[in-house]
Order: sequence, then C-alpha cells, then structure tokens
Amino acid sequence: MTLACRAAIRIAGIVAMFLALGPIAAADAQNSPLDVAKSLADSALKDGWSYDFLAGLTTEIGPRLAGTDAEARAAEWAQARLKAAGFDEVRIETTPMTAWLRGAETGHVVSPAPQSLVLTALGGSVATPPEGIEAEIALFRTYAELLAASPGSLAGKIAVVTQRQVRSADGGGYGAANPIRRAGPTEAARRGAVAYMHRSLGTDSHRLAHTGALNYVDGAPRIPAAALANPDADQLERLAARGATTVRITLTPRTVEDARFSTVVAEIKGRERPDEIVLIGAHLDSWDLGTGAIDDGAGCAIVSGAARLIGALPQRPRRTVRVVLFGAEEMDYSGPAYAKAHAGEAAKIVIAGESDFGARKVYTMLVPPGTAGSLFARGLVAVLTPLGIFLNRDPARMGGDDIRGLQAAGVPVFSLRQDGLDYFDIHHTADDTFDKVERAELNQAVAAWAGFAYLAAETGVDFRALAAAQR
Amino acid sequence: MTLACRAAIRIAGIVAMFLALGPIAAADAQNSPLDVAKSLADSALKDGWSYDFLAGLTTEIGPRLAGTDAEARAAEWAQARLKAAGFDEVRIETTPMTAWLRGAETGHVVSPAPQSLVLTALGGSVATPPEGIEAEIALFRTYAELLAASPGSLAGKIAVVTQRQVRSADGGGYGAANPIRRAGPTEAARRGAVAYMHRSLGTDSHRLAHTGALNYVDGAPRIPAAALANPDADQLERLAARGATTVRITLTPRTVEDARFSTVVAEIKGRERPDEIVLIGAHLDSWDLGTGAIDDGAGCAIVSGAARLIGALPQRPRRTVRVVLFGAEEMDYSGPAYAKAHAGEAAKIVIAGESDFGARKVYTMLVPPGTAGSLFARGLVAVLTPLGIFLNRDPARMGGDDIRGLQAAGVPVFSLRQDGLDYFDIHHTADDTFDKVERAELNQAVAAWAGFAYLAAETGVDFRALAAAQR
Repeated sequence: MTLACRAAIRIAGIVAMFLALGPIAAADAQNSPLDVAKSLADSALKDGWSYDFLAGLTTEIGPRLAGTDAEARAAEWAQARLKAAGFDEVRIETTPMTAWLRGAETGHVVSPAPQSLVLTALGGSVATPPEGIEAEIALFRTYAELLAASPGSLAGKIAVVTQRQVRSADGGGYGAANPIRRAGPTEAARRGAVAYMHRSLGTDSHRLAHTGALNYVDGAPRIPAAALANPDADQLERLAARGATTVRITLTPRTVEDARFSTVVAEIKGRERPDEIVLIGAHLDSWDLGTGAIDDGAGCAIVSGAARLIGALPQRPRRTVRVVLFGAEEMDYSGPAYAKAHAGEAAKIVIAGESDFGARKVYTMLVPPGTAGSLFARGLVAVLTPLGIFLNRDPARMGGDDIRGLQAAGVPVFSLRQDGLDYFDIHHTADDTFDKVERAELNQAVAAWAGFAYLAAETGVDFRALAAAQR
Repeated sequence: MTLACRAAIRIAGIVAMFLALGPIAAADAQNSPLDVAKSLADSALKDGWSYDFLAGLTTEIGPRLAGTDAEARAAEWAQARLKAAGFDEVRIETTPMTAWLRGAETGHVVSPAPQSLVLTALGGSVATPPEGIEAEIALFRTYAELLAASPGSLAGKIAVVTQRQVRSADGGGYGAANPIRRAGPTEAARRGAVAYMHRSLGTDSHRLAHTGALNYVDGAPRIPAAALANPDADQLERLAARGATTVRITLTPRTVEDARFSTVVAEIKGRERPDEIVLIGAHLDSWDLGTGAIDDGAGCAIVSGAARLIGALPQRPRRTVRVVLFGAEEMDYSGPAYAKAHAGEAAKIVIAGESDFGARKVYTMLVPPGTAGSLFARGLVAVLTPLGIFLNRDPARMGGDDIRGLQAAGVPVFSLRQDGLDYFDIHHTADDTFDKVERAELNQAVAAWAGFAYLAAETGVDFRALAAAQR
C-alpha cells in the first residue's frame, strides 16, 4: 500500500467518524451519537433485564454442558427470551460435536492415612477402570519439576503437580498456569505415569475442584486426569513430605460421538448498512459442576442486555449489532466452528469482542491497533470514563476464545476487561452460581458494552482502515 | 448459709489468692505467678508445637467421626503425642455408643429444571429408601412459617426451610438458628412431611453443605433430613417462586450399635494439691466431611499446647492441670458420659472450660460469678490484656458442650471466647481443613489458655467460694 493510499484511508476514516459523531438527522435529531451512548449507559445502570436474564438462565436451565440436552434447552430458552426482548432476528445454528460427559469421580488416600480427596475429572479425560486406579503418587511442587523428570521415571505412579495459580486482577496467573492442566496429562504419560492429578487452577481454598479441558496429543498415551481441590493438594503435599503415599482415583466419564451444540444469533439490524456487523459474543454453554453464572451466563446477560437496550432506542443504529451466544466454548469447539461456518462473512464484521470474564465491573478497554488515537476512541472515552473505565495503552491482542477464529480471518477485535481478582475463586467449580453476582456490577458491564457497541455501530468507524494507517 | 459464713469464705478465698500471687518459694524463687504466667504467654506466641499438632492430626488422621476406627486412631495418635510432650499421665477412657455413619447422599431437582443439589445428611438422620424419595417441596422462608403450618398440611411433601443464619462474631446466630436443624425434622414430620431439608446453618455461600446432629423426639415420626448448601437453598427459593418444584433425595446412612468412642486424658500433676483439678478440654472427634481443623482439632491443639507449656516450667503448679480431649461431642455423647463417669470427681474440679470455637484469636474472657472483682481476675487481666483480651462484664454461663454435665454437677466454668465472625463459613463442612488456620492466631489462643490455666492452678483461687460469697 502506498503512503498516499494509507493517508487517504486514514482521512476517509476520520471524516466518516467526525460526521457520524455529529447530530443524526433522524428521530434523535437533537442527540449526537455521544449523547445517545451516554443515555444508553445511564439506562443500563438502572436496568433489571440482564440480572433477570441471568437469574432465569441459571435457575430455569442450570448447568449446560456443551452437547447435552440442557445446552440445547438453554439455546431455546435464550432464543425465546431474545425474541421477546425485541431483537429483529433470532436464530439457532447447530453444529456436530463429540460431547464429553462426566461420570463418577472419587479419590481416596489409601495409605498411610485413609481419607477422601476432593477432585474432578478434566474435560476430555479418558476413564479409569470402573474399580479405579490405585498407585503411589509422585508429587511435584512445580510443573517444571515434572517436565524435568526423565522418561520412565513415573512408571506405575500417579503424577501430582501442586503448583499454585497466582491471583491477579487481570487473570494472568491463569494463563501462566494453563499448561499444567492442558499439557500436564500428556507430559506425565510420556514419563510413564498411569494417571495425573494437579492442584486446581484456582485461587480459592475450598473443597471444590476446578474442572477445565485438557488437550491430549496425538500419538502420546492418554491417561485419566483430574484436578484436586486446593486443600486436597495441600494435604497430599503434607502426606508426601511424610513418606510414601498411595491414592486410589476413579473417573468414569464417557463421550457421545453424534452430539450437537447450538449457537444462538440475535440481531439488531442496521438502518443504513445492515451488512456491516458489530459482533458481541459470550458463551451459553457452561461446565456441569455449577450453573454457569459467572462463566458465562453473565457474559450472555451482558451482551444480550447491551444489544437489547440499543434495540430499544427510537431508531436502529447504522450498522447491525449481532449478539452471538456460542455453544461449546468450554470444550474448545465453538470458536473454530463459528469462524469456519461464517468464513464468507468475516469481511463484513467490522469488529468483534466476547464477554467471558465474569460479572464484575469493567475497568479497562482495549481497542484495535490504530484506534486508540482516533476520534472514535475520544468518543468512547467520553462515554466510558464516567463508568470508571480507562482506555488501555495496549492494543487488544484478543477478543475472546470464541473470537480467535474470526480474528485469524482478519476481523478487528476489542476487549472490555473486568475485575478478575476473585474470578478464579469460583471459575469452573460447583460454586459458579447466581448468588455470586452483584446486580450493580453486572449493570456497569452492560453499560460499557452498550456504549461500545452503539458507538461502533452508529459512527461507521473503520477499524481496519485505522489499523492499516498505523502500519 | 449465714452472712458470717459467706464473709469468712470470701476472706479465705481472697487471702489464699493474695498469698499465691506473691513470689513462690521454690524453683521460681524470683518469679511471682504473674511473672510466670506472662512468660508462659510469651512462650506460647513463639511456639510451634500446637500448629504442628494440628497439622499432624488433620493430615495423619484426617476426619474422625465419633465411634469410627479413625476416631480411635486419633485417640492413640494424641496419646502418643502427649506422652512425648512430657505429660505426667496420659490415658484413654472408652465409652459405648451407637455410631452413625454417613452413606450416599444425593439430591436433584426433577422438575421443572433438572439439576443437581448439594446437600448432606444431618447426623442421626434415618435413611431414605435406596432409590430415594421423590416429592414436591413445600418451601418456608422462615422456621416460624413451618411451625405455623397445620397438621397434615405437608402430607407427601418434602418440607424445606430456607431461613438464613445471621453472621456475628460471637456465633449467636448459630444458637438462634439451631432449632431449624435440631427440631425441624420432627416438626416437619408432625405435619405430614416425608422428608426435610433446611438451608445449612452457615454464613458462607459455597456449594458445601453444613452437617450437624438432629434430635428426633420419641413418639414422633422419623423422616430423613438433610442440609442444603446455601446456593442450593437460594436456587430452591427461586424455583419455588416460579411454581411447583419436585425434588428427589437419597440418603443412606446407617448406625452401628456396638461402637465405642475414646476420651484422651492427660495431666500435669499438681505439686501441692494434685487432687484439685483445673480441667481444660476440647473435642477430638470431628465431622466426617472435613478434617476437623477448626472443629475441633484447633481446640485440642490449644489446650494441649497450653498444658504442655505449663508442664515445661521448672516446677509443676500447685494444682493439677487436666487436659480432656472428648471423643463424641458432635454426636452429643461425650459431655453427659464424662460427667457421669467422673461424677465422684466433680467436687475436685476447681474450674473447667472447653476450647471449641475455632482457631482465631481469643478476644474476651468470661469467668464464674463472683470472680470478676477478685484479685485473681486482676492478675488474669494483667496477663491477658497484652494479648488483646478483655474481661467480660457477664459471668460465664457455659464452659462448652462437653462441660455442661460437669457444670450441672456444680463445677465452676469459664470461657475464652474466640473471634467467630467467619467460623460458621466452614463449620461442619468439607472445608474444615488445616489451610484455614493461621499460626499466629492459634498461638494467641494457646497463650490465653496457658495464662488462665496456670493462674488457676498456681494461685489456689476458690471459684466456688467467690461465687458463694457473691450470692
């Protein structure tokens, strides 16, 4: 691209935004997009719809593991709710998947001190024999120590990694510890282990284990794998320090090859450029242990509630706002599947983001490269600053697990980051229930998403052009 | 008693104390009892024995339900530990009991929204049939509403009471809510209910139910009874508000008629009046769900550690300090049994107290009637004030569940109350594990108990006389 071409694109983008940020000659004749966005945020703070949506989803459906009847019911439930809420179009797209279903899961110290252990199978784990696996444990206090163990050194043992996830507001400790769960089972198996356990990826100290998906590697042995509740990992550390410790674990999950998951798509159609799409997503599936309130019923409530408020304005914004409630995030299916199914649409999606980090307040926003210095960002800051949100210096690197495929296809992404200091206390546990959600915090997030989505849809900002101009 | 007699007793008591609070002509020639008590408290704050005791008990034994092998192992374990710690005599007394053993326990919402419920059988509950009991629920938001229901009105229903326990530092909310668990099953049965569930007596919001004993009433029907985790009680409230809700619960506990429980008794023998006993107790049995760290491994560690420090002094105190680790507090057996077995000794027990309220700091002390204004109390205040403990205006009304029988037999009681603001977050749940204990807080409690027990044993204070003088 020539410099002149870049400059032309940049100017075009800025002019378009500038015009758009002025008053709209329509039903909102007196109101600029900024005024409308601010009033949307104000409405969100007082609204009860998202909180009620979340209460309904977690109560009337409850747990909704991808590929199960409950997940399908959740999709129908959401479709009905969104239709009633005035969306222009609400549809369900279904996709084949192999479902993984939890079975029994028990653990016991056999010797030297018989007692039960709280654990949960990792998503995707193979089963133990029905009578379980009994073996001495080989305990590693860090994952690096497991990786340093030589091949064959864990033969016949149950490998246990007790490294702790670090607590942090941005959730960075989870990413850093993630290989312990994702790759640990394979690494232990390669060294001869007959089963694998790790300290839950979680920052609490309750007898509730944190599940989550593992990733076996083709060609490597597959061994049963489970996460221990934090106090139980402590207990095994103390027992191992005292001497040889034998444990029995029983896990009986199974898979269903011909399952399907559902994706709920709901749109507020754009009045001028309906083919240009601002995509805001969340995932409707949840782990089976809790009722998926913070992960990710909250996200569904936030993006649905934000779009609903936009739809309740006197007129539609210029572009389409599309809500996508993904159906199999936890099992790693829905992001790639959506990108594949909608590959032809990628160019029409002007920006995409996913709300999947709980129900607390948004504290920072990350926008695509080249956007932070734009007039659009100035408008965004004007709307989101009163909500206690700052514009991050860093450009958005990811828009969410389900957005990754679109991003790879060239879709610009944004991120509205929520306070996650206690998110991993309950993430992926039975404790992920509605009582953990504060209505005022949830509504602040709705306000942020409504403000962002409306401005992106109304102003006609060209995020791709801004990024190109910066290059 | 005549006034002159009362006055004589009072003077005798005061003179005895006054003499005792002066320097002791012995190994501690330079040290008054107050100096020794202060140095004991200082030693306790730096000590590691009690914390290690608690780590060992909760790790090497773990859960120890009264009447089980684990409880018997715990008694042997404690006996060995206390012998090694230098107690003059350590013995185990065994008592017959009917043990209650937990079986399977599951709960599910059958309709309108199938999902699992977290619950736990109440101690002493009868079993459901193996296939469970399925019935519509009758939900009461307060216990009073259940009591107001007419006979027969709950026929065929599962009664559910969702009243909340109030959080308070002194644990008063537990006592107030206790009839919901103790008497609720009988009250529901009298109104026709086929099973009973109540919101756990607990102040947390985790998917961990709080067990605890119920009390059936002779002649009334006995129905299975369970406690729901707090979030599950919330869930049933929301479901019931939406319409008819059917639940299935399965509980398969059983009883063992010819079980026994153990009481561990360890003494630091008095150098002058070995037959006069300062009794400090705690209970070694625990519920089976957790490892009994705060209830009541901590109490065992506190009173054992306090007496051990007294035993480590250059000379024994005048009176005997007796540690009693009761073996069946949770099932209501040990207090009455101990009082019965030791009825002949009651007159020799100069004072008794039990540490059974967790592992946090002691913040107030309650002494028998007539003691607060005494010279003894002045000494106590001098030792305990630096630990952040104040002398309560109220006299001690109770010394602990296991002390009640002795109290009824005329033994004066005292209480060192610990901060209980979060005690009922984990009380009687699987979460009662060692990681919840802070060493510094535990040691402060050891310091308080050591100071109290030493002064009571060394000064020769006559609590009965002080109480009599006040009457």
